[in-house]
Amino acid sequence: MAQNHSLSDFLASAVDAAKRAGEIIRKGFYETKHVEHKGQVDLVTETDKACEDLIFNHLKQLYPTHKFIGEETTALCGAVELTDEPTWIVDPLDGTTNFVHGFPFVCVSIGLTIGKVPMVGVVYNPIMNELFTGVRGEGAFLNGNPIKVSSQTELVKSLLVTEVRSLRMSGSCALNLCGIACGRLDLFYESGFGGPWDVAGGAVIVTEAGGLVYDPSGKDFDITAQRVAASNPLLKDAFVEALSE
Amino acid sequence: MAQNHSLSDFLASAVDAAKRAGEIIRKGFYETKHVEHKGQVDLVTETDKACEDLIFNHLKQLYPTHKFIGEETTALCGAVELTDEPTWIVDPLDGTTNFVHGFPFVCVSIGLTIGKVPMVGVVYNPIMNELFTGVRGEGAFLNGNPIKVSSQTELVKSLLVTEVRSLRMSGSCALNLCGIACGRLDLFYESGFGGPWDVAGGAVIVTEAGGLVYDPSGKDFDITAQRVAASNPLLKDAFVEALSE
Repeated sequence: MAQNHSLSDFLASAVDAAKRAGEIIRKGFYETKHVEHKGQVDLVTETDKACEDLIFNHLKQLYPTHKFIGEETTALCGAVELTDEPTWIVDPLDGTTNFVHGFPFVCVSIGLTIGKVPMVGVVYNPIMNELFTGVRGEGAFLNGNPIKVSSQTELVKSLLVTEVRSLRMSGSCALNLCGIACGRLDLFYESGFGGPWDVAGGAVIVTEAGGLVYDPSGKDFDITAQRVAASNPLLKDAFVEALSE
Repeated sequence: MAQNHSLSDFLASAVDAAKRAGEIIRKGFYETKHVEHKGQVDLVTETDKACEDLIFNHLKQLYPTHKFIGEETTALCGAVELTDEPTWIVDPLDGTTNFVHGFPFVCVSIGLTIGKVPMVGVVYNPIMNELFTGVRGEGAFLNGNPIKVSSQTELVKSLLVTEVRSLRMSGSCALNLCGIACGRLDLFYESGFGGPWDVAGGAVIVTEAGGLVYDPSGKDFDITAQRVAASNPLLKDAFVEALSE
């Protein structure tokens, strides 16, 4: 009986676990800004741990014969080899830097492999309330609606995403300035943007939030110069020096 | 009488204009995915123009003696020199690439300079419902709550944001894969991420959305290899070639 589960059962269980973990993440996300750096690190660790425990307990109860691989558990107990057995592979909190900085790209990721092939995938962003799901052979969905990849054929017109540690690109100059203003981001610079309209609104918001807006060379900010840097006052000198290298 | 306005009046007018423009942006944002590329370009242009007209008309009626600089108007009529007069500087839709790709960082930016000094700033993201405001000497706010810049003092611990055209970094491997799956993003690669938990959920979602998940070298994807690339099938060869350069 216990072995008689369908992929739909696995998907439903994973969605259930992801949503419960999402509640914990959402709560922590809005708390981080109110705690000190040390407290933030603790909050990430606690949230990560609480989510992994919740997800593992939930799934182990339903599928006691399955294997489990999780980021937290691996960190504690060492790497577990991936076998052909049904294996739940879980990242309880992806985007921990975003979590601490209040940048809304955080998620729970749950995958199930059978014979080492990913069969079920659930990625849930509890901040933007976006639930991505996929079952091998049955399509992919965002909040229940079918999704498909872009039809872009030209590399030069493509939107590329990659990761460099501690670097973010939101694609909006004005929102980058606001990110500095509310402490989500520490450093921002850009040159060659469109015009004064990109910075006219954000500049006063940064200044009023206790930040500095300046030319990347360290000179005074010129609203018409199409060059801007912003940070808190403490980072300005080091940032200007780093930018001049 | 007409000259007898306070900075608070200017702020209230700018917020009002930004929120009305935000309605237009929000409507277009959820429409873009249903139209072809040509139609998307038209939708951006129409939205941009409609928002700038709305904001300019709203503010000109209230402040007929003020000057106005806007991205759309400048594109049509050439650059307007910034003078000491009260001048509204408007970007009706910042983040047009995000707008088309359904990436939630889009905003209206409205600034007011007097004597070339930014005095009032409003940046409104209608998708995330975040309203940033600032008035010179009176503080900065996010949805009415005071904000302040981060207290980070070390460059190496800082979160940097900058812009490269057509490049985004969300900070979550799982969500990058989902971005590919729903066509918001065209290309993704990463190597050296944490472990299989970063990709186990997203891989099947990309595949089921009609995309490909592969090793950046073009070889088969190995869930345990800590290297991943993803795109639609049409872009794979060109992307692998570009990554090998």
